[in-house]
Amino acid sequence: MKRACINSNEIALLDKQVRVHLINGLGGFKSVSLVGTRSEIGTNNLAIFSSIFHLGANPPLVAMIFRPSPPERDTLRNIISTGFYTLNHINEDIYKQAHQTSARYDIEVSEFEAVGLTPEFKSNFPSPFVKESAIQLGVAFKEKVDISINNTTMIIGEIIEIHVPEDCLSKDGFIDLEKANTITCSGLDSYHKTIRLDRLSYAKPDKEVTSILAVE
Amino acid sequence: MKRACINSNEIALLDKQVRVHLINGLGGFKSVSLVGTRSEIGTNNLAIFSSIFHLGANPPLVAMIFRPSPPERDTLRNIISTGFYTLNHINEDIYKQAHQTSARYDIEVSEFEAVGLTPEFKSNFPSPFVKESAIQLGVAFKEKVDISINNTTMIIGEIIEIHVPEDCLSKDGFIDLEKANTITCSGLDSYHKTIRLDRLSYAKPDKEVTSILAVE
Repeated sequence: MKRACINSNEIALLDKQVRVHLINGLGGFKSVSLVGTRSEIGTNNLAIFSSIFHLGANPPLVAMIFRPSPPERDTLRNIISTGFYTLNHINEDIYKQAHQTSARYDIEVSEFEAVGLTPEFKSNFPSPFVKESAIQLGVAFKEKVDISINNTTMIIGEIIEIHVPEDCLSKDGFIDLEKANTITCSGLDSYHKTIRLDRLSYAKPDKEVTSILAVE
Repeated sequence: MKRACINSNEIALLDKQVRVHLINGLGGFKSVSLVGTRSEIGTNNLAIFSSIFHLGANPPLVAMIFRPSPPERDTLRNIISTGFYTLNHINEDIYKQAHQTSARYDIEVSEFEAVGLTPEFKSNFPSPFVKESAIQLGVAFKEKVDISINNTTMIIGEIIEIHVPEDCLSKDGFIDLEKANTITCSGLDSYHKTIRLDRLSYAKPDKEVTSILAVE
């Protein structure tokens, strides 16, 4: 395998867009979801994010990163002003519409309407879910953390409502994301479905890991 | 589609391990990499992490989350004491060994040796790369952020060295992770390879997104 080696100085000299593509890709495959919010005047907003990550299970926390002066400024404002948002997994049927939500629509435009996805309101949750998503999470805003090193903002939320297809839930709590058709992304614009290799047993120093699919 | 609905109270009442599986899965597919460090007395440490995420491209920053009293305490200590670490993508040939690094080995044991992966030192970088990984990153520790809401720790690092197969690099900076055989994971123990659906054009409000694979 012939590897290119790129050092700090060379990274700094890259064309800005090339660097953005390159560094975004290096982190590996990413979670990608649609974030649903509602503005104070009642516009349903929807934006795609690939910067969402698991922060902890108890309490159930997820976090996401906003860039400085982000195009997703409506999402950030709505999260802070209303205190709630939804996370909706993206599947093969809707990934083009999902990507289209990243266009810079005017503030009064609902991306749901613009791209052709359906806002769903249920169980008195104040933000819109995406009806076409199999896995939908209702999240309550908990904390804003300013990351000074590059002027980004981390938003931490608590998952307070989970909607997940019954046949994707295992007894041990494992969620079969593939059965829910959840996809993943890489870089800025590449979308991928997945093929499961295996589920592996809890690792112990004196024991070889084994497949646990048979005992699921 | 019949969806189960699980609310806050029900989440809190779940068995601890079920909750850990469930919440870990809800974030979607995750980046998964091997973190290579060297202790002050020269032991080569290796640990699998699925909490690594892209923080920004300029400067090129990645971040990762450590749990309170993490089993990966050796990794955290080595990063802070030496100031450097490596991130190494996991492929189909090594995911079982990668998973095995999560076993709680004693501090003096090198996980490289224990699981059968090869430490690689090059270009004077002080931490070990994983020879079997196609994509290898040398990272300099920049900042430790304490996240008080659940006592986790975020470690921010700057990518200062990139080793990537030449045939995986596009002119526009995009990295073909699939060609590098990089895999993804879900939940605590499920590993997946990917099939690319498409790369999509930069979204604009008045334009339909199109595939950009043909023009790559």
